[in-house]
Amino acid sequence: MDEQKEVLRRLRPLFYPESVAVVGASDNPFKLGFHALAAVTSSGFQGQVYPLNPRGGTIQGLKAYRSVTELPQGVELFVYAVPEREVAGSLREAAAKGARAAVVFAGGFLEIGGEGRRRQEELAGIAREYGIGLVGPNCIGMFNTHAPINATFASPLSFMRKGRVSLVSQSGGVGTALLCGLTEEMVGVGKFISAGNRAVLGFPDYLEYLEADPHTSVVCLFLEGVERAREFLVKARECAAAKPVLAVCSGFTGSAHRVALSHTGTAATSETVYRGSLAQAGILQLEDIGRMTRLAKALDMFGSPPYGGAFLATHTAGPAIIIADICEREGIRFPRLSEERAARMRKFLPRYSEPNNPLDMFAQAWTDTSLYLRSADIALEQENVGCAVALFASGLGAGPAFPAAEFAELGRKHGKPVFLCLIAPMNLAGELEEAQRHKVCVVNSPEKMGHLLSDLAAYKRLREALPREG
Amino acid sequence: MDEQKEVLRRLRPLFYPESVAVVGASDNPFKLGFHALAAVTSSGFQGQVYPLNPRGGTIQGLKAYRSVTELPQGVELFVYAVPEREVAGSLREAAAKGARAAVVFAGGFLEIGGEGRRRQEELAGIAREYGIGLVGPNCIGMFNTHAPINATFASPLSFMRKGRVSLVSQSGGVGTALLCGLTEEMVGVGKFISAGNRAVLGFPDYLEYLEADPHTSVVCLFLEGVERAREFLVKARECAAAKPVLAVCSGFTGSAHRVALSHTGTAATSETVYRGSLAQAGILQLEDIGRMTRLAKALDMFGSPPYGGAFLATHTAGPAIIIADICEREGIRFPRLSEERAARMRKFLPRYSEPNNPLDMFAQAWTDTSLYLRSADIALEQENVGCAVALFASGLGAGPAFPAAEFAELGRKHGKPVFLCLIAPMNLAGELEEAQRHKVCVVNSPEKMGHLLSDLAAYKRLREALPREG
Repeated sequence: MDEQKEVLRRLRPLFYPESVAVVGASDNPFKLGFHALAAVTSSGFQGQVYPLNPRGGTIQGLKAYRSVTELPQGVELFVYAVPEREVAGSLREAAAKGARAAVVFAGGFLEIGGEGRRRQEELAGIAREYGIGLVGPNCIGMFNTHAPINATFASPLSFMRKGRVSLVSQSGGVGTALLCGLTEEMVGVGKFISAGNRAVLGFPDYLEYLEADPHTSVVCLFLEGVERAREFLVKARECAAAKPVLAVCSGFTGSAHRVALSHTGTAATSETVYRGSLAQAGILQLEDIGRMTRLAKALDMFGSPPYGGAFLATHTAGPAIIIADICEREGIRFPRLSEERAARMRKFLPRYSEPNNPLDMFAQAWTDTSLYLRSADIALEQENVGCAVALFASGLGAGPAFPAAEFAELGRKHGKPVFLCLIAPMNLAGELEEAQRHKVCVVNSPEKMGHLLSDLAAYKRLREALPREG
Repeated sequence: MDEQKEVLRRLRPLFYPESVAVVGASDNPFKLGFHALAAVTSSGFQGQVYPLNPRGGTIQGLKAYRSVTELPQGVELFVYAVPEREVAGSLREAAAKGARAAVVFAGGFLEIGGEGRRRQEELAGIAREYGIGLVGPNCIGMFNTHAPINATFASPLSFMRKGRVSLVSQSGGVGTALLCGLTEEMVGVGKFISAGNRAVLGFPDYLEYLEADPHTSVVCLFLEGVERAREFLVKARECAAAKPVLAVCSGFTGSAHRVALSHTGTAATSETVYRGSLAQAGILQLEDIGRMTRLAKALDMFGSPPYGGAFLATHTAGPAIIIADICEREGIRFPRLSEERAARMRKFLPRYSEPNNPLDMFAQAWTDTSLYLRSADIALEQENVGCAVALFASGLGAGPAFPAAEFAELGRKHGKPVFLCLIAPMNLAGELEEAQRHKVCVVNSPEKMGHLLSDLAAYKRLREALPREG
């Protein structure tokens, strides 16, 4: 408990800074420093912002400072939007002024070897000497929707949906792709960290922080390789014991290596070693970032409930068959309904509709959506049914909307998660968002639903296979 | 050639009708017949429309007819938005009036067995006797953006992007999911057919028509089972020899069977039999509808060129590593650049950027996007490089847009396809659409790009493995 408090306190100046200096701030939109300053100011950051530029004057309407020495004492976070050669000197001055945290965008460090390696060692040495929590270098920065602070060079990220899924990505590009995926799935983000070369802060630190962070419910990682492997696995295990930790790993093939070696200075070793180590730490490794995004959505919404077998109801058989095919291959059961429950369903199901699981209620359920609610209410009573899944083709101009609020209410009544596969060619966004607001977990294709149920089961199996602690 | 003309002529009244009757048309938006009529009228259909309803009067502003007998002679297409029991009698009257084609939405035929089977036999008997091309029953109808005619009950489908990818789906729900996928990928659709129970027209007929159809470049199928298997394979082979035919198949597991048996009256047999038969016919079977959608996009845009190895360039290594991992596992090569070409690239590549393939040009290529053009221009000269792939993280508020028009121009210069993996969290749609307008094939995640390149290679291998005809 004290240890948790310690890491929250130690990295507070990074994630919740009281003041921020942007070194290299500029009024020229073709400069990185323009966008770095715009990111901070657009984020709704409440503290003092100090643009630094040798020319002085005003930048983006703010008083600019010519040098670090002009700054008042105690500015907490320094964002570096300057070339690699200028960072170390400035960081040393910042340290003297009491800097507590730093974000360094520039490349040209460990990943290029030689002088870059020496440059990184110098930078890390200064940060360690003065206890500065440094993100990067060779990264796109970090943001925290809860502060709020956007210490990237992308002001659009100031407008990410606020939430509790936090991300740490070795690659800025993949981090961006992950944010893109979460936006598409309408999932709120807590903290985002582009880890880059991890000269000072690395995965072990971020995991320790996110474990303790009360605003993070699920942690998503993108890894190409890890430094401090033993420490990583210890922190990973501790974090995964507290909340779901998911990972996508990359960089296992020859071509990948040719790119990666010039990348952030590490390259993945064997895929098998990775998967085994992560699994032992309680981290589920996913096949792709889309699947990780949707699994994170479900775990954020429902935590880690038992799930178990699924009840699947539809008005259109085809997409349900796709879901069933994927699930059965991955070992998800659709438990048969008890005789007694089947008999109760038969009373209201349309003619020719058999009370099976999966359950096809034909077009009648498209016009009378209460059939979804009545059948799920009975199925969810059954002990080996751990969740209900509805499949609905919406947006075709004719049918009513899916009764998402009532479906969510049923889930709460039975204490079991509810899912919706919503097929809607034109006007998905509104319906999806509305349903998720009510706590129905929605995806927009049968394949995504099949994989989500499979990945939830895989996560459950992974957690159950771990030795109990404590 | 004559045979082709024959099928175009024979099914012309279905796909390009001169006049349409909507049986069961209604002014009540809670009735299917309201939406069936609205679909026809919203589609921009230029011929005469005849709403039929026993009450007469006007419906949606059009003069309504009390019965088929009131209609003028020669109305070509009859759309049935009435219950299953009323279809056969009305179709017989329509036949007497010269009907040439029909669409039947209602379920309650073969898929329920017993009386349903007899009902379907009666319907098929009438259609066959009078030479009426009938779609369904138990389907969501068909539309053709080139007529234009929308004979579904979904008026939003009137506004699908017009194009050359045509779809035949056994399931209406999966058909809708496919349309949703094509919309997401901004791919234009030619003809869409929800085949349903295939009482009269079936996959062999649709394949024969789409082979001959000059407005169809690629055919996508969703199959749960096929009737007339030998005829299907003959027509499939002929169609696949003329243009790419892709398929997703479903319904192989136990749970899937429980849904499918009550579905459109057939169920998939063994997965292996399917895959083998389709491959022999030259049809590529895809894992999921998203992948089929994107492969159709590329084949529609570029035809079936040799492709070969890929040249991949990026400003951000992480997502390129994901692409490379997927591609190498699936056997896609990233050919090494010749010494001479590497030397020419080295002259303009940023410091520390090695002229490898995949090629990492660091953040410099994000600010100076001409690096993408210069490197691809050299790489595409190389014989074993069949296409160029650019990876670009856009929409971050700071960088310029990717130079899509110039990249497409390079592709044309070298006669090779060009692809763009565009990672853009907020404002993807506009950039994606603009790039595709120039004939750059765009997807929005590294995994999608990896799978697209893999699926293109799989399609190429499949075609090359077929014995040469003629």
